[in-house]
Amino acid sequence: MIKEAIFHRPKNNFAYAYDANTLHIRLQAKKDDLTRVELIHGDPYRWAEGRMLSDKLPMVKSASDELYDYWFIAIEPENKRFVYQFEVSDDRETWVFGEMGFTADVEQNRFFRFPYLNAVDVFDAPAWVKDTVWYQIFPERFANGNPDRKSNTNAVWGDVPGPDSFFGGDFEGILEHLDYLSDLGITGIYMTPIFEAPTNHKYDTIDYMKLDPQFGDEETFRKLVKACHDRGIRVMLDAVFNHAGYGFGPFQDVLKHGAASRYADWFHMLSYGNGEETPRYETFAFTPYMPKLNTSHPEVKQYLLGVAKHWIEEFDIDGWRLDVANEVDHRFWREFRNAVRGVKDDVYMVAEIWNDAMPWLQGDQFDSVMNYPFGEAVIDFIAKDKIEATRFASLVTSHLQLYPENVSRVLFNLLGSHDTPRILTVCGEDLNKLKLAFLLLYTYPGSPCIYYGDEIGLTGDGDDFAYYRACMEWEPDKQNQELLAFVKRLIAIRKASPALTDNARMEFLKTDDAKGLVIYRRSSGDEEILVALNKGDQPAEFELPASWSGKTVVDLWTGQQAEPDKGAQSTGFKLSGQQFRILGLGIK
Amino acid sequence: MIKEAIFHRPKNNFAYAYDANTLHIRLQAKKDDLTRVELIHGDPYRWAEGRMLSDKLPMVKSASDELYDYWFIAIEPENKRFVYQFEVSDDRETWVFGEMGFTADVEQNRFFRFPYLNAVDVFDAPAWVKDTVWYQIFPERFANGNPDRKSNTNAVWGDVPGPDSFFGGDFEGILEHLDYLSDLGITGIYMTPIFEAPTNHKYDTIDYMKLDPQFGDEETFRKLVKACHDRGIRVMLDAVFNHAGYGFGPFQDVLKHGAASRYADWFHMLSYGNGEETPRYETFAFTPYMPKLNTSHPEVKQYLLGVAKHWIEEFDIDGWRLDVANEVDHRFWREFRNAVRGVKDDVYMVAEIWNDAMPWLQGDQFDSVMNYPFGEAVIDFIAKDKIEATRFASLVTSHLQLYPENVSRVLFNLLGSHDTPRILTVCGEDLNKLKLAFLLLYTYPGSPCIYYGDEIGLTGDGDDFAYYRACMEWEPDKQNQELLAFVKRLIAIRKASPALTDNARMEFLKTDDAKGLVIYRRSSGDEEILVALNKGDQPAEFELPASWSGKTVVDLWTGQQAEPDKGAQSTGFKLSGQQFRILGLGIK
Repeated sequence: MIKEAIFHRPKNNFAYAYDANTLHIRLQAKKDDLTRVELIHGDPYRWAEGRMLSDKLPMVKSASDELYDYWFIAIEPENKRFVYQFEVSDDRETWVFGEMGFTADVEQNRFFRFPYLNAVDVFDAPAWVKDTVWYQIFPERFANGNPDRKSNTNAVWGDVPGPDSFFGGDFEGILEHLDYLSDLGITGIYMTPIFEAPTNHKYDTIDYMKLDPQFGDEETFRKLVKACHDRGIRVMLDAVFNHAGYGFGPFQDVLKHGAASRYADWFHMLSYGNGEETPRYETFAFTPYMPKLNTSHPEVKQYLLGVAKHWIEEFDIDGWRLDVANEVDHRFWREFRNAVRGVKDDVYMVAEIWNDAMPWLQGDQFDSVMNYPFGEAVIDFIAKDKIEATRFASLVTSHLQLYPENVSRVLFNLLGSHDTPRILTVCGEDLNKLKLAFLLLYTYPGSPCIYYGDEIGLTGDGDDFAYYRACMEWEPDKQNQELLAFVKRLIAIRKASPALTDNARMEFLKTDDAKGLVIYRRSSGDEEILVALNKGDQPAEFELPASWSGKTVVDLWTGQQAEPDKGAQSTGFKLSGQQFRILGLGIK
Repeated sequence: MIKEAIFHRPKNNFAYAYDANTLHIRLQAKKDDLTRVELIHGDPYRWAEGRMLSDKLPMVKSASDELYDYWFIAIEPENKRFVYQFEVSDDRETWVFGEMGFTADVEQNRFFRFPYLNAVDVFDAPAWVKDTVWYQIFPERFANGNPDRKSNTNAVWGDVPGPDSFFGGDFEGILEHLDYLSDLGITGIYMTPIFEAPTNHKYDTIDYMKLDPQFGDEETFRKLVKACHDRGIRVMLDAVFNHAGYGFGPFQDVLKHGAASRYADWFHMLSYGNGEETPRYETFAFTPYMPKLNTSHPEVKQYLLGVAKHWIEEFDIDGWRLDVANEVDHRFWREFRNAVRGVKDDVYMVAEIWNDAMPWLQGDQFDSVMNYPFGEAVIDFIAKDKIEATRFASLVTSHLQLYPENVSRVLFNLLGSHDTPRILTVCGEDLNKLKLAFLLLYTYPGSPCIYYGDEIGLTGDGDDFAYYRACMEWEPDKQNQELLAFVKRLIAIRKASPALTDNARMEFLKTDDAKGLVIYRRSSGDEEILVALNKGDQPAEFELPASWSGKTVVDLWTGQQAEPDKGAQSTGFKLSGQQFRILGLGIK
């Protein structure tokens, strides 16, 4: 037994409240090392004759990655209190693992403890999120619905964008194309910033309380939110609270009055400069036009929390995406959560955090983060052929184990955004690769988001972000209609399948590096969905799980009963190169 | 290389802000497995030619326990932002370890990230805590300073206590003995609850805003706090916010009016009962007279936070010890911290948590917890002979690695309390054992606390908590004066030695299970202190570290220069059975 590989620590992802009554307990161990894990558990206050009255329950090996097995159990403690140790066995020995490490028995150890399952601490992302299908809009580039407004245009729609191009995209444009989004199956749109700012991306806010006039007025925006809601589409805006723009009033005041400015402490000034010297201050990413805000200052907090509440109270938005959230202090985000939830109790809060984000996802700060690690794994496997099937399965399994299941279920999954090259370009413009990437996106646990235009084949790459933000193509014959229909079908399948959305369980049944084959299962209740993905150029075969034998299996793509392929075994299916199947069992 | 044993995850104890400029990074690896660990690091936004500009810095093996080595580095990121991977080597191979596990190089991996060192998030226990020497008082049993107040007495001072005994201990008694505490070297007293409650322990509060009249009035208590402050003694009270007492007004109202009570939601009622049925409600530890408070209810919060502020604002207390803190929700404690720090910015908050308490010690909730795991390790090693020297060193090392250094430095260390058998009794009334236990207490990182009377040899054990709470003995000839002098000397040594208090570094130089020998070093700046402890009955020898050779070494116990013992090697010292030495280098 490799004791050193065994890891557990309460709270975080290893022991957490799944809901107000249920605890999830996980144990990490070296892969293929342990043969049995039992949970010795009880109430911390239930004793008899000096011994805690306790039970033993078997844990199951729920997942494995390259290095580890993950043992799991869900349990409902009778009195909301829970103490436990693990009895771990391999073929030769058995140990008790508790807070004091490994001992021969429970008495010599100390119990791990989940002291109390307080409902108010349970991670509580809005219920609607797991079923939402998102569409990210970069407003300047989605659609120009009011060509008469000339002030916002210095380029012709469809031209190659430069860093300073303005094409005239606006709220009216989005309004005009809500039919398109509904038809695609979208139920949530996320817009990058729409508040007054000089750039086309608007991540350098001048006034957080004002819509940028290039996008339209408040009346139009209110109409847009209302029109979305009428169609069952949620609206999420982008809050850039880590830093302001150079032209932000309070920052200009500091530049003008130096230390005497009443806003002097709103930023992290390192020097105020003088006639000859440039002022120095903390910025976002060495970008002088993005001065970092001092989010620990009471006035700054009051202002920004006021902003966060304003757009909910006045315009009824449904979510905030939080730019560079990991560089802002945790205290600010806790107050932020209380503030926005105080005005609307099911607002979704998605942080821009590209790394492991567990410290922000404990129920006190965010509901979710932009799941770039998922997207990167898909890209490395499907698009770039950088990793093999087994490595891909291992990476996403590790990532799912990093978080509680109720967190993974609402992570904001994406293959690309305004900050990354276009996914089709990343795929080397290989449409089959792109389709497989979309297949993964829409059959994976979480809340999937597509970046505008990826569904019709927009491309773009290069050394400037501008290239990732090309104008949406609205001429039907210039849109890739086959791709669009493909995405639409995938979305429809996802929305009809609780197995794809209810939980975060993702079971890899098989990976074959030589073939490029990955088979995984999602399930919920009696419904099971099997996805078989053949990334390779050569045909491959796969078999159904033994438990499916003799039952009616549906091909979710065609809606028809799925018959094993001739020539393959009785439960066997064939897959051409770069093809896939989505099969369902128990579908209602 | 046992890759599976290598663990790191930012925030918590593995990567944390030590102060507003300094990050500590730790890596856990299998013991004796890695030969070299280097930190590849940089600023997340400093790139050139598509590659992050980064440096490599060697990490040091700072500690080892039974299973693991802990590699460490302290670093000051230039722009408060930090990304890093580890380059780990054994004799045969080198790998890069990052967020994606193990890869051949940095490019195939993802950096760990400490996104921003925000000062407001840094764990900030009060500066005075690490230097404080605590004394725990159970007010009913410490001293009766007002024998005329008869209402609080049903037993004769010094009799064996029963569960319902009242001996008349009071504030006047404490006031009378402040000279005694000052003489002992005490700089902080922690009192178990003093608010109105029917029991002698007062953990079943009836009125949180009222002192229990059996202890005295507000004027006397105010005088007590003032007298303590005049002597440089801080005062910490006990807040029982997990549950109230059966007689608590709002609970009585619920018992009377059931669901119609305006306090119905102040508790966790499971049923309100009726004439025949008993009401059911969540309690502390199945104790019907301790109904659990609903600390997520706004009115309950307002009331309890008002209580917490009141005793600081009106009586200037310096700390709160928080009873059963781990069963109260995290949200409550975050608001609690903001509330009390808002009225006095250096209040110390110590939670009663007997287990791993990392989730509560991240800077947003508590400053400290009662460090029972430390006490238990000392007891198992010294008092009960249950574990060997090596296991002891391993347990405390593991425990120190569980927390950031700035947390360990202020943990509330104790060998016993009102909730545990008397330490002398646990030692089998072996005074030599008790002395060694005290030696460990006062030379260990943290904020040490002694339970009243332990310093003069009070005993007590048995199946009732009452036995742990005997009356303090004030007749000098019934006090163990030798023990008292011993504790006084230890406290004096601690208070004179920054090496014992400045930081949480504890380096075990040697353990010898056969002899029962433990040698450890504490250090700060140029000051080093070596503690040699021989638990066994037989004489043992030990040597000074090579770096001490030829330098002036002081015996801190005698204050004299320490000369190696004749017959031992030139740097060797002899230790009789159950004896110890405290030697100092660079002492000013």
